[in-house]
Amino acid sequence: MKLLEDRILSDGEVIDGKILKVSNFLNHQIDVLFLDQLAEEWKKRFEGVKVDKILTIESSGIAIGCALARVFGVPLVFAKKHKTTNVNEGVYSSKVYSFTHEEYYNVVVSKKYILSGEKILLADDFLANGKALNGLIEICKTAGAEVVGAACAIEKGFQNGGDELRKSGMKIESLAIIDKMDSNGIEFRK
Amino acid sequence: MKLLEDRILSDGEVIDGKILKVSNFLNHQIDVLFLDQLAEEWKKRFEGVKVDKILTIESSGIAIGCALARVFGVPLVFAKKHKTTNVNEGVYSSKVYSFTHEEYYNVVVSKKYILSGEKILLADDFLANGKALNGLIEICKTAGAEVVGAACAIEKGFQNGGDELRKSGMKIESLAIIDKMDSNGIEFRK
Repeated sequence: MKLLEDRILSDGEVIDGKILKVSNFLNHQIDVLFLDQLAEEWKKRFEGVKVDKILTIESSGIAIGCALARVFGVPLVFAKKHKTTNVNEGVYSSKVYSFTHEEYYNVVVSKKYILSGEKILLADDFLANGKALNGLIEICKTAGAEVVGAACAIEKGFQNGGDELRKSGMKIESLAIIDKMDSNGIEFRK
Repeated sequence: MKLLEDRILSDGEVIDGKILKVSNFLNHQIDVLFLDQLAEEWKKRFEGVKVDKILTIESSGIAIGCALARVFGVPLVFAKKHKTTNVNEGVYSSKVYSFTHEEYYNVVVSKKYILSGEKILLADDFLANGKALNGLIEICKTAGAEVVGAACAIEKGFQNGGDELRKSGMKIESLAIIDKMDSNGIEFRK
């Protein structure tokens, strides 16, 4: 999506040739009206797909999740991140490894909010190795819910998370896929 | 606001006579269209007040912050919670005590996103003792920004945070103020 690619090029910062910072419009300061435009694009890409709920992970997925929930007219559920395995019988939980923080955390959702048979659209700001999405997929599977796809803003195409999920048959709609990124610049997938 | 009071009565859960759980529409599962209605009410209550930015704290303030940012047509900034004092010169930071978790945490905002002279409207899902809001106020003061008020969904009026801030002259607009809450029910301020 050109709108997002242009915004990444104008406002994004590549740090040490490998970290992309988009904290001035996506995940610290948030341009809500811009996210609404992204959500309209996702709405088109998932046209004809039945969606009962949006599921994301705190914190940086919440704003995107809100924009998606609005255009689909469904509730948003956000999974919580717990460092401890403080898991009880009222929740679904999945262990996820964070390469950013080099540690495991638990993704936790109350059993009340993901129900058997529900059609779930996953959402997140970034898709890189896919660990976070896979945690959400595991939770949906345990709940007996069906994942109908994933809406991600920025995909690091040079990591394998998105393409592996596509190979498994999942509909992954990332609005900007970065195939190469270094101190010289950013190259988007065509 | 009757709309929110009714929703608390129908969907809220009082646990042990003192904890109010509203996680099925406000802070785990989120009814985004309902939050839009709350935001319209805040827009009326802050009519004539110039707002440059909305400032909230992750995670449960983000959805409300998004709804407010949309009706005011301004960016949302969300402060991050850090347990460690991993504070560098690029950020403003304030130490906040959490009664819920019985520990201190740091509220951190990049210096790039709160600027001197900006008019800031604070937002949060709950207002109880006011510790979180006071942390945000301290950050704005350090940045030289002006806090024009605070928009909170649910205020625990039997704790003193909201009324103390009002006494200090701040415009605090909570859409449901609970003056009494126990196993027999919830009593709202009139």
